[in-house]
Amino acid sequence: MSNNSVPESLRINPKRLKSDFEALAKIGSTGDGGVHRPALSPAHLAARDWLRERIAAAGLEWRQDGAGNLSAFLPCGPENGKTLLLGSHLDSVPYGGRFDGALGVLAALETLRVVQEAGPSLPFNLEAIDFTDEEGTLVGLLGSRTLAGKLDPGELQNPRGGRQALLEGLERAGLTEAGLLQARRNPETLAGYLELHIEQGPRLAQAGAEIGIVSAITGIVSYRLAFIGRADHAGTTPMADRLDAAQGASAFTLAARRSVMHDFPGCVANVGDMQFSPGAFNIVPARVDLSLEFRAPKVETLERLEISLLSQAQEIALENRLELGVEALGRHAPAPMSTGAQKAIAQACDRLGLKSMTLHSGAGHDAQSLADLYPAGMIFIPSTGGASHSPREFSAWHDCLNGANTLLQATLLMEG
Amino acid sequence: MSNNSVPESLRINPKRLKSDFEALAKIGSTGDGGVHRPALSPAHLAARDWLRERIAAAGLEWRQDGAGNLSAFLPCGPENGKTLLLGSHLDSVPYGGRFDGALGVLAALETLRVVQEAGPSLPFNLEAIDFTDEEGTLVGLLGSRTLAGKLDPGELQNPRGGRQALLEGLERAGLTEAGLLQARRNPETLAGYLELHIEQGPRLAQAGAEIGIVSAITGIVSYRLAFIGRADHAGTTPMADRLDAAQGASAFTLAARRSVMHDFPGCVANVGDMQFSPGAFNIVPARVDLSLEFRAPKVETLERLEISLLSQAQEIALENRLELGVEALGRHAPAPMSTGAQKAIAQACDRLGLKSMTLHSGAGHDAQSLADLYPAGMIFIPSTGGASHSPREFSAWHDCLNGANTLLQATLLMEG
Repeated sequence: MSNNSVPESLRINPKRLKSDFEALAKIGSTGDGGVHRPALSPAHLAARDWLRERIAAAGLEWRQDGAGNLSAFLPCGPENGKTLLLGSHLDSVPYGGRFDGALGVLAALETLRVVQEAGPSLPFNLEAIDFTDEEGTLVGLLGSRTLAGKLDPGELQNPRGGRQALLEGLERAGLTEAGLLQARRNPETLAGYLELHIEQGPRLAQAGAEIGIVSAITGIVSYRLAFIGRADHAGTTPMADRLDAAQGASAFTLAARRSVMHDFPGCVANVGDMQFSPGAFNIVPARVDLSLEFRAPKVETLERLEISLLSQAQEIALENRLELGVEALGRHAPAPMSTGAQKAIAQACDRLGLKSMTLHSGAGHDAQSLADLYPAGMIFIPSTGGASHSPREFSAWHDCLNGANTLLQATLLMEG
Repeated sequence: MSNNSVPESLRINPKRLKSDFEALAKIGSTGDGGVHRPALSPAHLAARDWLRERIAAAGLEWRQDGAGNLSAFLPCGPENGKTLLLGSHLDSVPYGGRFDGALGVLAALETLRVVQEAGPSLPFNLEAIDFTDEEGTLVGLLGSRTLAGKLDPGELQNPRGGRQALLEGLERAGLTEAGLLQARRNPETLAGYLELHIEQGPRLAQAGAEIGIVSAITGIVSYRLAFIGRADHAGTTPMADRLDAAQGASAFTLAARRSVMHDFPGCVANVGDMQFSPGAFNIVPARVDLSLEFRAPKVETLERLEISLLSQAQEIALENRLELGVEALGRHAPAPMSTGAQKAIAQACDRLGLKSMTLHSGAGHDAQSLADLYPAGMIFIPSTGGASHSPREFSAWHDCLNGANTLLQATLLMEG
């Protein structure tokens, strides 16, 4: 270790981090504070080119795997030792914000630069990683699930962004499906994973906390529910004779919110879309397809919530003389963060004099792909107004610095 | 008058009517009992060609006006006397039924043939008319409103079926916009209008009646209501902090039905469509645009219903901390049928020994375009199961014959 012989006195370089943050926010900028960098789009690939240059400029080695995950590597641990991953993602949702993902990647790179300069030897090597397609424009958590060996090849045939978009993105990035499926890394070689991210919600600000220590990433379940009645002439069919699919879908939408708020504190449910068939002013709706998503931080709560919502849908369909179609679409189990990582983050906050609180993440993150394989932890900073996935997304710069210093200190405190 | 010196003994020719009905049902047949004859489509124009031949084969004069309305004319009244119109329409909704409109046109033609053969002299001439675009694939009640001089030229610029479809239909039929607007007929030359139609609802069957005497055609009002909240991350935004447009739209959909059923007997309301924005599983809906239509048979009831529904929408938006956008889209005033025509139809039923009931029409009809200009009346026959605008649409043949004979007798009973 050079000048800074005491690791706890190490701090990130605020000017260098800010300069990087501002340069990155210009790539794919939408001019309103937001960025448009869907995974493997030209803007996303431009951001990766820029990051590769920044890695090289720092004298760090850069690596890219078959999934396009781009890393900076710092051999600060024992030879042939394990590697601690620090990371996030450079891709954005369409017309999203400039903090989500970007801050975590830059803070990871900055952590490597500070450790490189200070020269402490750690019980592991460090790798700052930018995961491909965290946001799911193409597949969803694509880079982290590939690295974890959890990508089902079948998903590539009918991905949520469409097969064509995936193929075009891969070609644009010089990647192949075969390469994707070979990008798994042996968990034995990895010491853990830490990520800094904005909260994307209002809880830290509401509690007056500066840092959030994530206890778990919520489980997410999505369904398409079809309330099925009968199309009838909306002028000539008496009200009592109608089998009106809109009544079932509407009653369920109200019941889902009521039930989650009363019986499932800390959980959420969303009816994000309805599609009416045939969808005419003068025809009683024969069918409404409803997009339902709900989240809970613990496995057994998620299961109770699922049973409650589906049985309410069934009852409401029956009461309205409708049929109910139930199609399970997606399921991510809740992912608890490691107690070791939570402890390292809490100690980092103590060192830095930052007020922290423990909370679960309502949003999905790459950490959920890795958390059952090695210790994973997440650090949240406050999101002003709670907005995210929007150009309105904002975090104060001092909060960003606090987050980056917490990441640095937690890295130094992680066990090997 | 030839053989049949007593008009009340005149009857339509069941074999001839059935042969016509079956021939017409083949034109645009969808093979499942239904027909697909949207206004001015090739199938609709083929049906008109067939009708023109049937008119000519009966030795009747055929006429076509600038709106494409196709008529058979029988000079059975005083020279330069007025003309009583009998009619309906040959166009169908897309993939509709074979009775709606078709039965009324054929029964009108058959009435002319029977009067022509029997030779009574009436206080008016007779004209069997097939109105263009009753169903509104292009504009809606296009032929009858043109004839009544009620078509606003502006409507042709942005018709409900789209400008392009209108222009293509007119060209296919050899019609022009200028011709359309010149097709008005002087009300002084017309003695009235009678139409036979299927009920398109279950009320006659439920009451055990064979003939419906229409007292009025309901008024129809349509609105687009926008419930406007805020898009938020559906995982990270606590339930209590959401401005969820789906909650407002759903609460209104339930309230509208409840309110109409409890407080507005005989009226109907329909939420036929909702459009969610942005419409994603994981985003709280920022906006729901809701298609609302409601109907009432009397002007003052329609106004009370309108006030009730709009004020409920306003209250619900407020309760859910949403904004409400209100866009008035369409308004057809209730059209009372003439007491003279109702009396003629009732007397016709007495002559024929048919059990009749008085009811209003929940559906719109060409008669509503004409009812304020001269006496108009409508005859309904039972619709099995109440289905309409569907291949399931069906009326028993003996009911069709009863309806046609009622039209014939009511024609003979109309005052000049």
